[in-house]
Amino acid sequence: MKAVVFEQFNTFPTLKEVPEPTPGSGEVLLKVAGAGCCHSDVSVFQDYTPETGSHTKPPFILGHETTGWVEEVGPDVTGFKKGDAYIVYGPTGCGHCPHCVAGQENYCSSAATNKSLALGLGRDGGMAEYMTVPARNLVPLGDADPIGAAPLADAALTPYHAIRAAMPHLNGGGKYALVIGLGGLGQIAIQILHALTGATVIATDTKPEALAKAEAKGAIPVVSDEHQVENIRKITHGEGVDAAFDFVGVAPTIAAAQASGGPGSRVTVVGIAGGKAEYDWYSKPWEQELLGVYWGSIPELYDVANMYRHGQIETEIETYSLDNALDAYHKLVDNKLSARAVIVPHTKA
Amino acid sequence: MKAVVFEQFNTFPTLKEVPEPTPGSGEVLLKVAGAGCCHSDVSVFQDYTPETGSHTKPPFILGHETTGWVEEVGPDVTGFKKGDAYIVYGPTGCGHCPHCVAGQENYCSSAATNKSLALGLGRDGGMAEYMTVPARNLVPLGDADPIGAAPLADAALTPYHAIRAAMPHLNGGGKYALVIGLGGLGQIAIQILHALTGATVIATDTKPEALAKAEAKGAIPVVSDEHQVENIRKITHGEGVDAAFDFVGVAPTIAAAQASGGPGSRVTVVGIAGGKAEYDWYSKPWEQELLGVYWGSIPELYDVANMYRHGQIETEIETYSLDNALDAYHKLVDNKLSARAVIVPHTKA
Amino acid sequence: MKAVVFEQFNTFPTLKEVPEPTPGSGEVLLKVAGAGCCHSDVSVFQDYTPETGSHTKPPFILGHETTGWVEEVGPDVTGFKKGDAYIVYGPTGCGHCPHCVAGQENYCSSAATNKSLALGLGRDGGMAEYMTVPARNLVPLGDADPIGAAPLADAALTPYHAIRAAMPHLNGGGKYALVIGLGGLGQIAIQILHALTGATVIATDTKPEALAKAEAKGAIPVVSDEHQVENIRKITHGEGVDAAFDFVGVAPTIAAAQASGGPGSRVTVVGIAGGKAEYDWYSKPWEQELLGVYWGSIPELYDVANMYRHGQIETEIETYSLDNALDAYHKLVDNKLSARAVIVPHTKA
Amino acid sequence: MKAVVFEQFNTFPTLKEVPEPTPGSGEVLLKVAGAGCCHSDVSVFQDYTPETGSHTKPPFILGHETTGWVEEVGPDVTGFKKGDAYIVYGPTGCGHCPHCVAGQENYCSSAATNKSLALGLGRDGGMAEYMTVPARNLVPLGDADPIGAAPLADAALTPYHAIRAAMPHLNGGGKYALVIGLGGLGQIAIQILHALTGATVIATDTKPEALAKAEAKGAIPVVSDEHQVENIRKITHGEGVDAAFDFVGVAPTIAAAQASGGPGSRVTVVGIAGGKAEYDWYSKPWEQELLGVYWGSIPELYDVANMYRHGQIETEIETYSLDNALDAYHKLVDNKLSARAVIVPHTKA
Repeated sequence: MKAVVFEQFNTFPTLKEVPEPTPGSGEVLLKVAGAGCCHSDVSVFQDYTPETGSHTKPPFILGHETTGWVEEVGPDVTGFKKGDAYIVYGPTGCGHCPHCVAGQENYCSSAATNKSLALGLGRDGGMAEYMTVPARNLVPLGDADPIGAAPLADAALTPYHAIRAAMPHLNGGGKYALVIGLGGLGQIAIQILHALTGATVIATDTKPEALAKAEAKGAIPVVSDEHQVENIRKITHGEGVDAAFDFVGVAPTIAAAQASGGPGSRVTVVGIAGGKAEYDWYSKPWEQELLGVYWGSIPELYDVANMYRHGQIETEIETYSLDNALDAYHKLVDNKLSARAVIVPHTKA
Repeated sequence: MKAVVFEQFNTFPTLKEVPEPTPGSGEVLLKVAGAGCCHSDVSVFQDYTPETGSHTKPPFILGHETTGWVEEVGPDVTGFKKGDAYIVYGPTGCGHCPHCVAGQENYCSSAATNKSLALGLGRDGGMAEYMTVPARNLVPLGDADPIGAAPLADAALTPYHAIRAAMPHLNGGGKYALVIGLGGLGQIAIQILHALTGATVIATDTKPEALAKAEAKGAIPVVSDEHQVENIRKITHGEGVDAAFDFVGVAPTIAAAQASGGPGSRVTVVGIAGGKAEYDWYSKPWEQELLGVYWGSIPELYDVANMYRHGQIETEIETYSLDNALDAYHKLVDNKLSARAVIVPHTKA
Repeated sequence: MKAVVFEQFNTFPTLKEVPEPTPGSGEVLLKVAGAGCCHSDVSVFQDYTPETGSHTKPPFILGHETTGWVEEVGPDVTGFKKGDAYIVYGPTGCGHCPHCVAGQENYCSSAATNKSLALGLGRDGGMAEYMTVPARNLVPLGDADPIGAAPLADAALTPYHAIRAAMPHLNGGGKYALVIGLGGLGQIAIQILHALTGATVIATDTKPEALAKAEAKGAIPVVSDEHQVENIRKITHGEGVDAAFDFVGVAPTIAAAQASGGPGSRVTVVGIAGGKAEYDWYSKPWEQELLGVYWGSIPELYDVANMYRHGQIETEIETYSLDNALDAYHKLVDNKLSARAVIVPHTKA
Repeated sequence: MKAVVFEQFNTFPTLKEVPEPTPGSGEVLLKVAGAGCCHSDVSVFQDYTPETGSHTKPPFILGHETTGWVEEVGPDVTGFKKGDAYIVYGPTGCGHCPHCVAGQENYCSSAATNKSLALGLGRDGGMAEYMTVPARNLVPLGDADPIGAAPLADAALTPYHAIRAAMPHLNGGGKYALVIGLGGLGQIAIQILHALTGATVIATDTKPEALAKAEAKGAIPVVSDEHQVENIRKITHGEGVDAAFDFVGVAPTIAAAQASGGPGSRVTVVGIAGGKAEYDWYSKPWEQELLGVYWGSIPELYDVANMYRHGQIETEIETYSLDNALDAYHKLVDNKLSARAVIVPHTKA
């Protein structure tokens, strides 16, 4: 079968012929419907070295945002029907630490010594005609379109986890949420906040078209200029927001999130830009929590899939055939995509 | 001033002239905007006796769903401006037990020996031109219409509290909530569930017009017939709902709520019909909680007022002048109201 | 190897020679240290029929409370060292539903169609020299004695889960917890409550020796007589307990639990006697939750094992060699055991 | 009556004769049993200026850690009996914002414009023979010794609040908590952690005698040297602690708290030294929350009082008569106290 293979560090991936995989014990063979191209892939093949990329050693098939249809079921697996659509949970862990047994492979206790980060990151992923997946990593999509669903595995699961963990701050009437950075994840965050909370959502970015999209989704747009924090606080009648989600993660955006929060608020850094934040006791507000999050859990992917099935999350995608997969990555590298690129090896089960 | 006074047990209330009250220490004098007529009032003047009504001894002015404008501020009170609109928290407690200090006067530890249940229930309420209210019982309405807000004090606070306490069962994607009984409180419950959760709301009643109203609010209507439970479970793909709210509270509605729930679900009985429910360990589903609730807290009334201010809760009312207040009660007794009756002593601050 | 095999319905188990198992993909071969004899086993071999026992069809090796040492590691398993001690999580699920992926195989969505309930209940368990276990069902015991640990898998995990879920009611100073039924699980519940909460623990039973044991563990004993509820409430200064755990589960014990609770309390029925409880809105206290629970999850077994390793839970056991295993079951049937019987096939790794 | 009065900024307080107060509406007159001398008092009379001390303008009677016996009850107050012992909740708020109605006067929304911080901080406190207190600020002590209880109002309520808010991180078996800074608050924190959680408590400080006291309370002592973090992590088997409480609050102690935490842990800065902390996404561990807290709420003071009544918190005090109150403050200024100084105006009700 054809597959997009990351063959060696600091090298663009290759589209090549590889053997079709066979499902082992506890695994399912998936006929791939959609596989999203993610910025992390670019870091993997462009920036990582044998030292920094010890968990993503080539060669392997890329693709950690995958959906597909059950094609064949391996030994010791029950409860799957050929042709049914599923989305793939990416993170791979040791399988038996306190986090893995709870479906939080993203926080595996053995992360330091694991060989891969995820299906598609250190181990074969979905950018191919077929893919084998452990049964427990498959979440049902029912009748929902599996191609549009592919990006959910990362671009929706990540903001979902951040929001879910902030729920105690957003439960109830009269709450305010702030979304900083209105790219793919930020736009999905707005949808999730509107669906799951009654919060007034404030959205901020530098780009007018991103702000317009956010406004169309019901958020109150605030331009990221020198009055940003003041304007955000004004919307909250001076109280500050209850939860802020920073999808950029540079020092100024984290500082803006902190300054926009009210007493007892929560600032979640989702963007992995690594910006430094400062904290001291006298920097009001009272009891503002500051933390960072990474990806999400299998039970949370069930929730995300359910929201998609109920029409509460819509993704923006542009599709490419498997033959054109490398074009999609070239555009991603050149920053020429206007939506998530999804590689579509097959259009039906 | 004119006021609707409950003068003695088992006797219809009277519209009569009474002295205008003066705000004491810690109190505010409110110019009444709206005062809702509630079914509980009917129980108080029609059914209660000196024995059963020890907390609602006549005479007192009725009205426990009140809004108004600040007219005058008593000694030791700061932070209020004449003309600003507020809604009144009803329940009255001892003021210094663990519940009262937390704003849960509805669950006052001294309930058994308190002289009144609430402002308007055992102590002068809002069915008058003016009313004195302890400062802490006042929740700001901002620019929102105070007349439409009157019923929120009970008809929205009660379902809000029930839903807020069930939030751990409704947080997240793909949840299902069931509302049984689609009168005033049930219709508001649907709005609160849609605003604060991503749950699919299923609504059930015997009356077609109540079901139609619920459907117009986005709920999935299910007729209360012999297939009710089966139809509800079908909507949830057999899993059962995550939280059920029974605004009727007779034995068959509680049983329907229990039978409609999934594992780990929560059945909240809000309706005070006193129907008996049965439980045993083998009555699946696993870990289904069963409980009843009563009214709500001051912090929760803040949330309710905020939701109203943001347009997330709309009330259905028909207004009556104070001179016609007794007509409203007659219609309530005769079951001839099609919406909450709100007495409007003044139309502006 | 020797094993205690349940060979057919309504028949006492047999001690017989069976082939030693080989660990499959994802499995570990355990050299058994301890295997607890549980009352449920008696129901399985004495009472169940092909109709009621569809999930526990003979033949299979008994033993759902097992500990042991790693003997051999199957394919695709990493992170285990020969000789390390583990406790086995019993429940077996489909492996890929929302509950199973979270480590809650006890609440598997496919429970109705699963072939087994647990390792040792429908599928080979630990009453043998060796046993194969899926890697994720193994929880490390470190240096703690594995023989005394065997009963934890059920007799501690079950009360732990009940208590863990009630924690929001017990967090904080000045709380009261009630334990009804002071057999093995009740005695462990007292230890867990003392270790994890600051609650005053009240313990009730009919048997003086059980009450004495509870008192020795720091609980306040209350005889189960006609003054039981009154005496319990007196200890709580009339407020009622915050959480009650009924390890008996007959109608009168559930009623006592309900009557002993305060406002906002939680009554958890753990005992599976199937007694019926009654509920209505006017049965004070406010917001008392009533529910039943079943077994626990893998993450919870980690907590239990950690408590045992820290000396916070001690078990009472009497040990039997594998050759004498049937004696232990005979004594269990005849009600002649004074502690949990643990079969000990090997005394070291 | 005699009272310790703070008369003007940057001036040592005076012991002088003042009129005995009369309880107003909603107030109770307390015969003072104990009044604790707190470091904050020193800041108030030594360091503050009209600019920085706008909420603590002299003159007023000091003492924000007070206990006493009901002497007289003001108008509109019920439920108190002469001679009963109470502890006084200090913080004073507007009385009608969302925080004040919930008993969180410490987080009053009008803090910026309030005239006082607390009874004894900007408004007459307990360092006198008698004191008037709003009824809702009084928490019953029952039969417990009121003199030893005085410091609870701040020195126990503050750590209690920090711990209570961290409970979701400490619930369950096998948890680790870290206490940094083993002065009065730190020693009480150890007691609260042991009473309310099953966590292994690790305690760190530079002073051997403070470490010895902590060890006597069951904590594992770790010297604050260059191996501090390494030694703490070793105790947790490399996982890191689940919650850290820093009672110092300088940059190095906060950094040590952060470095000692595991994934999903919580670092609470209680000490108000104002040290700066740094955060970035790549500074593991995952999802570690960082926040600061200030004092506590009335419902939490109920919990603290209950723990004291049950013997779960013991305070270390040295007592002074009211005539010697200034000596106590002199020793506090000169750092010559070895325990909390409590002024004792009366020894019985």
